[in-house]
Amino acid sequence: MKLGLIGLGKMGYNLALNMKDKGHEVVANDVSKEALERIAKEGIEVAETYEDLVAKLPSPKVIWLMVPAGDITEKVLNSISGYLSEKDIIIDGGNSNYKESIRRGKELKEKGIYFLDCGTSGGMEGARNGVCTMIGGEQEAFAHVEQLFKDIAVENGYLYTGKLGSGHFLKMVHNGIEYGMMQAIAEGFEILEKSDFDFDYKDVSRLWNNGSVIRSWLMELMEDAFSKDEKLDNILGVMHSSGEGKWTVETALDLQAVAPVITLSQIMRYRSLENDTFSGKVVAALRNEFGGHSVVEK
Amino acid sequence: MKLGLIGLGKMGYNLALNMKDKGHEVVANDVSKEALERIAKEGIEVAETYEDLVAKLPSPKVIWLMVPAGDITEKVLNSISGYLSEKDIIIDGGNSNYKESIRRGKELKEKGIYFLDCGTSGGMEGARNGVCTMIGGEQEAFAHVEQLFKDIAVENGYLYTGKLGSGHFLKMVHNGIEYGMMQAIAEGFEILEKSDFDFDYKDVSRLWNNGSVIRSWLMELMEDAFSKDEKLDNILGVMHSSGEGKWTVETALDLQAVAPVITLSQIMRYRSLENDTFSGKVVAALRNEFGGHSVVEK
Repeated sequence: MKLGLIGLGKMGYNLALNMKDKGHEVVANDVSKEALERIAKEGIEVAETYEDLVAKLPSPKVIWLMVPAGDITEKVLNSISGYLSEKDIIIDGGNSNYKESIRRGKELKEKGIYFLDCGTSGGMEGARNGVCTMIGGEQEAFAHVEQLFKDIAVENGYLYTGKLGSGHFLKMVHNGIEYGMMQAIAEGFEILEKSDFDFDYKDVSRLWNNGSVIRSWLMELMEDAFSKDEKLDNILGVMHSSGEGKWTVETALDLQAVAPVITLSQIMRYRSLENDTFSGKVVAALRNEFGGHSVVEK
Repeated sequence: MKLGLIGLGKMGYNLALNMKDKGHEVVANDVSKEALERIAKEGIEVAETYEDLVAKLPSPKVIWLMVPAGDITEKVLNSISGYLSEKDIIIDGGNSNYKESIRRGKELKEKGIYFLDCGTSGGMEGARNGVCTMIGGEQEAFAHVEQLFKDIAVENGYLYTGKLGSGHFLKMVHNGIEYGMMQAIAEGFEILEKSDFDFDYKDVSRLWNNGSVIRSWLMELMEDAFSKDEKLDNILGVMHSSGEGKWTVETALDLQAVAPVITLSQIMRYRSLENDTFSGKVVAALRNEFGGHSVVEK
């Protein structure tokens, strides 16, 4: 099919090439002229404006957004939808909050425009060679674009998840699980590192990927990381996060779903951003007040 | 090589068949005559007593223990070592506490007997077709039996981990990571189940195994479990544990290694064993005392 793709970041750029390989005609748009020039060299048609982009597509027009979640997605959606009409389809392939996707889908439906919320997993490598997508929204719209999802996915790597918001909800929970799995792996290596034994982490992660219960793609990534830097000496243990973990925790609280491990995984990321903590000062001060225990002076 | 194998439980039985397939001569022993008869039918030599077992082995004698950790391992070790002499090798393939393995290894060394502590992962299927082992102890003893470990493992599925205790230590930490990963996966499905969406968990776990970041053997096992029982309606959420998680937490505390997720995974298992809790009564009573909030009467 011929479709428009807005956003040529790491994910969007690779998705465009993936779509092209599978015989789809992509018209690409990005705010960066450099990104447009780069992808044009790959033989992909480009459009510098939304007007131009939309003019190049047959009806019903299909637009795939691959831009940062939040304000940018909101802004792009508001702009592009002005050029669309009934039965056109917008796919948001980014990591949007599912509540926003439900609101956006309802607003677009008032204009007769279909909206599919599509969680996208697999990283850059997946985007390029075979992605994993979970798609919510009206089934009629999904049916129109199913072949595209099938073509760019790994085998069994796409799923229609039901009503509006379900795709981004499922992706959010996926990321929550990911946070917990990553923290569990991290704590295991932390214990090895503090032990009196002398393990080679590259060998350990390779071993654990061969026949053990914890074999996983994340452990394969650790094997790769340790083979480049055997004790990770070149990086700091600062763990940023990009929203989905926090949303998973908030959602778990709203639903009264007990999710302590995912919650602590998020909290440990925040802790890693601070060298010293105010709560630490509070405990040190209290120990000093009641027991005369010494504090570490600044 | 020709070796003795003590313990024909789920793991030992399958390991014996695996060893035989790879051309090793196993002499099997178990307290259960039924187990001996069963494995004899598979063409494996059996010995009803330790005396008989040891008599059937060439020197240096190699004995693989695959019996429950704790008292049984202790008892079997004490008995069998009485029949062994210098340069003989005992391999403990069970889930023993690494501290016990260090003590046992030192005691056996005084008699000149080698002791290898071998963590074994991969479940029954692994034991039968290709196991994952991590082996600590004296390198000289390991070198003598390395070919056996290589033969019964999946490719790259065995690792000599260094000094006495390191094999069981690494297996313990592996299980700690496993607890954390399992709890993270569990919490994700808990959130899905409490949501307003209507996910098919078999489809979701299959999707997540194809191209997503959380693809893993554990998620494959979930795919299998959900395909047999789509909402797990036939089982209760009672989570037993067999020691390694608790040891990982204790070890983390001893080492001052920060492992909150693994710790909480263990705690959630204990919580699942109780229908009501005393701590719950305490909080309910306090809310009633200070705020007049109603309690649920027994």
